[in-house]
Amino acid sequence: MAELRLETTAIPGLVVLHLPVHEDSRGWFKENWQREKMVGLGLPDFGPVQNNMSFNAHRGATRGIHTEPWDKFVSVATGRVFAAWVDMREGETFGATHHVEVGPDVAVFVPRGVGNSYQALEDGTVYSYLVNDHWRPGQAYPALNLADESAAIPWPIPLAEAEISEKDLANPVLADVTPMAPKKT
Amino acid sequence: MAELRLETTAIPGLVVLHLPVHEDSRGWFKENWQREKMVGLGLPDFGPVQNNMSFNAHRGATRGIHTEPWDKFVSVATGRVFAAWVDMREGETFGATHHVEVGPDVAVFVPRGVGNSYQALEDGTVYSYLVNDHWRPGQAYPALNLADESAAIPWPIPLAEAEISEKDLANPVLADVTPMAPKKT
Ligand SMILES: Cc1cn([C@H]2C[C@H](O)[C@@H](COP(=O)(O)OP(=O)(O)O[C@H]3OC[C@@H](O)[C@H](O)[C@H]3O)O2)c(=O)[nH]c1=O
Ligand SMILES: Cc1cn([C@H]2C[C@H](O)[C@@H](COP(=O)(O)OP(=O)(O)O[C@H]3OC[C@@H](O)[C@H](O)[C@H]3O)O2)c(=O)[nH]c1=O
Repeated sequence: MAELRLETTAIPGLVVLHLPVHEDSRGWFKENWQREKMVGLGLPDFGPVQNNMSFNAHRGATRGIHTEPWDKFVSVATGRVFAAWVDMREGETFGATHHVEVGPDVAVFVPRGVGNSYQALEDGTVYSYLVNDHWRPGQAYPALNLADESAAIPWPIPLAEAEISEKDLANPVLADVTPMAPKKT
Repeated sequence: MAELRLETTAIPGLVVLHLPVHEDSRGWFKENWQREKMVGLGLPDFGPVQNNMSFNAHRGATRGIHTEPWDKFVSVATGRVFAAWVDMREGETFGATHHVEVGPDVAVFVPRGVGNSYQALEDGTVYSYLVNDHWRPGQAYPALNLADESAAIPWPIPLAEAEISEKDLANPVLADVTPMAPKKT
């Protein structure tokens, strides 16, 4: 079984985690998030206040690209996703992208200001994530179109065949996104 | 869609939560844990430091009855479980039980000292929970036999047909369990 391991990416602060998964005759068990071990390896002590889960009935369901003003620790409870990120923060790395396939043995820390998205690769995929601020209804945050040509995310399932919300179909292209300013401290 | 609602039980501090589940063409979305709303309704502000997930390949996988010295916020990411609890704390309610079926629309707060267990009712069930202290390898905590006759949990799938770990098969009966003392403050 693999050791817990953290990997940095081209997007500053976006960290890919490789999780040990203990298999036995019943199935498997994983520490999906473990504050002490992960902070010890360099993960920010992000202090989650909310755990969201989304169920995707069919392969191809695609959500994003969403930039909320909080950090996200994203993972998969069952199934697999193709996950992609676009840096939407003011600065030199605005527009930088990263993508990775996420099964139950991977988790990703997505810092505030980085656009988050995923496409379900299997029917019945459940995506589970922790965030460190509370979502409130009626607030709009910067979002980017899944089909943006400058980000050019290589979606495994063509977007024309994907299940996408009305809201996400209406998201603007990168040139029309207002970069996210750093958090006031 | 149901409103978020908390329900008390015969075990002091054991709280059953009914969660709103937003359905749409992609699948569903839920706030599985939401600190502000839930604390506002009376849930302890328990401060999770670890998120565990267990995958149960087959209907009948049964785990428990485990009492660790920390609180648990238990839920299901996909599938269904029959979940049961036995109060293992010193005092008047030692031995009190509660059980409920848990699908994606239910979560349960299990206070420190209450034995936790579940039986998967569907193949591929994923159980996800948050805890407020870190598990350490090699530590043994009070556990109760799933077949204990005084607790008499009405498992939907007979234990003789269930997938159970070697460790759980060796757990003692209630008369041989040392009640858990209150946390030193
Ligand atoms: C994010 C969020 C949503 N909701 C509700 C609003 C809708 O009724 C429903 C689905 O919301 P969407 O915004 O359509 O969710 P989705 O497209 O899945 O995007 C979410 O998942 C990917 C994440 O990047 C992003 O934070 C989040 O918006 O859930 C809540 O009740 N609480 C929440 O925290
Ligand atoms: C609880 C726990 C376990 N593990 C490892 C040890 C084993 O290799 C594997 C499975 O552990 P078990 O103790 O067999 O898990 P399980 O029988 O599923 O019980 C767990 O789920 C139900 C919970 O009530 C209980 O806290 C927990 O022990 O995972 C970890 O790495 N971290 C943990 O936090």
